[in-house]
Amino acid sequence: MSNLNIVVVGATGAVGVEFLDLLARRHFSFGSLRLLASAKSIGRKMKCGNRDFTVEALDENSFRGAHIAFFSAGGSISKKYAPIAAKCGCVVIDNSSAFRMDPNVPLVIPEINPEAALEHRGIIANPNCSTIIALVPLWPLHRHNRIRRIIAATYQAASGGGAAAMQELLDATKAYLEGGDHKPQVLPHPYAFNLFSHNAAVDPVSLYNEEELKMVRETKKIFNDPDIRISATCVRVPVLRAHCEALNVEFTSPISPSEVRNWLTDQPGVRLVDDPHRNYFPMPREASGQNDVLVGRIRQDISDPSNRSIAMFVSGDQLLKGAALNGIQIAELLVKNGLGAAAA
Amino acid sequence: MSNLNIVVVGATGAVGVEFLDLLARRHFSFGSLRLLASAKSIGRKMKCGNRDFTVEALDENSFRGAHIAFFSAGGSISKKYAPIAAKCGCVVIDNSSAFRMDPNVPLVIPEINPEAALEHRGIIANPNCSTIIALVPLWPLHRHNRIRRIIAATYQAASGGGAAAMQELLDATKAYLEGGDHKPQVLPHPYAFNLFSHNAAVDPVSLYNEEELKMVRETKKIFNDPDIRISATCVRVPVLRAHCEALNVEFTSPISPSEVRNWLTDQPGVRLVDDPHRNYFPMPREASGQNDVLVGRIRQDISDPSNRSIAMFVSGDQLLKGAALNGIQIAELLVKNGLGAAAA
Repeated sequence: MSNLNIVVVGATGAVGVEFLDLLARRHFSFGSLRLLASAKSIGRKMKCGNRDFTVEALDENSFRGAHIAFFSAGGSISKKYAPIAAKCGCVVIDNSSAFRMDPNVPLVIPEINPEAALEHRGIIANPNCSTIIALVPLWPLHRHNRIRRIIAATYQAASGGGAAAMQELLDATKAYLEGGDHKPQVLPHPYAFNLFSHNAAVDPVSLYNEEELKMVRETKKIFNDPDIRISATCVRVPVLRAHCEALNVEFTSPISPSEVRNWLTDQPGVRLVDDPHRNYFPMPREASGQNDVLVGRIRQDISDPSNRSIAMFVSGDQLLKGAALNGIQIAELLVKNGLGAAAA
Repeated sequence: MSNLNIVVVGATGAVGVEFLDLLARRHFSFGSLRLLASAKSIGRKMKCGNRDFTVEALDENSFRGAHIAFFSAGGSISKKYAPIAAKCGCVVIDNSSAFRMDPNVPLVIPEINPEAALEHRGIIANPNCSTIIALVPLWPLHRHNRIRRIIAATYQAASGGGAAAMQELLDATKAYLEGGDHKPQVLPHPYAFNLFSHNAAVDPVSLYNEEELKMVRETKKIFNDPDIRISATCVRVPVLRAHCEALNVEFTSPISPSEVRNWLTDQPGVRLVDDPHRNYFPMPREASGQNDVLVGRIRQDISDPSNRSIAMFVSGDQLLKGAALNGIQIAELLVKNGLGAAAA
């Protein structure tokens, strides 16, 4: 299918740029590639591999003849244009949260539930980045010994707030080092040498923020396990583009760190980085630019005397496996298996 | 007792500097003040308030006539010189981990177990910084509803590694922003826009690192509760001088966030910073330079259907309440109640 017509909505954003890079690096074969973005970017030239493309305006006719559209331009753009694209027979792979909990929309991590992708009705949702990065290594364990409870504390990079948030981290830090002041514009709090609770809105009833509730809801849907119990604390740290998470995971039966290590060895999307002698474990600087989620600090949770709990620490590139790479993998899955019912 | 003779061992270090500042700011009355440090700092002038002092060499005669010595020069200095000081009749308040688990040495947080300080035999230990910052707000809760289990993930500042680690964070970040390279010297991994598992040695059996095990052991001793179960994941983040911790705490009986808020209101050493509407919670930039531990994100842990668990987020100045302030408060307690058996 080298005559696939591809559309990238939000091509100039932090995730959009990664989509273009991945299409080239993974030799994703396409007939045409259309880059769409907001008004201020129209006419901008961008590269995919060594080919040049010009950013065009997004409108209701953008999806005629398109086969696959990657959306990464925020929830309101997705809500408006994804159904239009799907109606044109284009399969939408949506990186926003707009459709993730829609029962008619599969929520897919290809290492976990690839079969769900093939049941789409025109829209497939890419999960939240923190959810993906936790679940890729937890899935092989869940299959061996069902997970009952997850307690997660995240260390989330600026990239989750887009290219502007990454620039704000750099600008604020530079100003701090020069003794100057930097007024937060993209994120709500000073970012230089600081961290803060994730800026998603806080639910007034549960007092969890939306980022945390995404992890809770999306995990149940992706694992197809409504009984799994999750508490997350999502925190933005002054790191550029890879998230980390401290996970305490309770299983149904007793479990050992060596079992966990065995079950994670050679799993797609997972790389063990777990060397206690050298104090060498997953770090965002090393996860950045990598496809795999790095996993380490695997140990028996000493606060659970029943030996059913494991503590671990993971790190994954928020823009790659947390966003664009997962989307491209979904597209590759579709190409391999046929685009499905909605496609022409 | 305005004729107290005070000694500060490690006066030029990050914590030593705070000791001098606190002695002045809190109008700690003393007759003499002797500043001791390693050979390279001898002769250096330092201020306590507006009075000048000259750094002297530490030797076995340094403690003659001294009443209180603050030690913050690392475990090996404490191991060697604290017993010598105590033998001179001086009360040692030791910020290192050397004596914390010694059954003959009280481990004191004045808001929690002040009575223990008065039973000293010449040495009183200051707890680990992460332990103090978690326990100050947990103690009022523990008295109302006994804590059974704590799961902690820390976000620890550079200051825990001393002034040199703080400088390394600044230097590495500056080099990164200028496109240059910075070779880690004080900490084991690149620190600019990066985070990593705490650099304390990893115990080869439990696979927890020493920082984590300090939190486990010290909590049991300070709370005088050997049954409390704790798992910690200690992480160094690119922040200068205040630690944060995500805490999931299981209690004996059902508990509500409003009870927690009530029990923490007007508690010494605790300040509630918990405004979900404004997304305003504890941050290290705001905890820095403050005496209180900031507490927020107080919510029912939705992963515990028995309603016995609370999630919360705390931040405290590592150099103040995590080290020097707690030490000064112990000294103030001694001054108020008499220096105790070992003092002249």
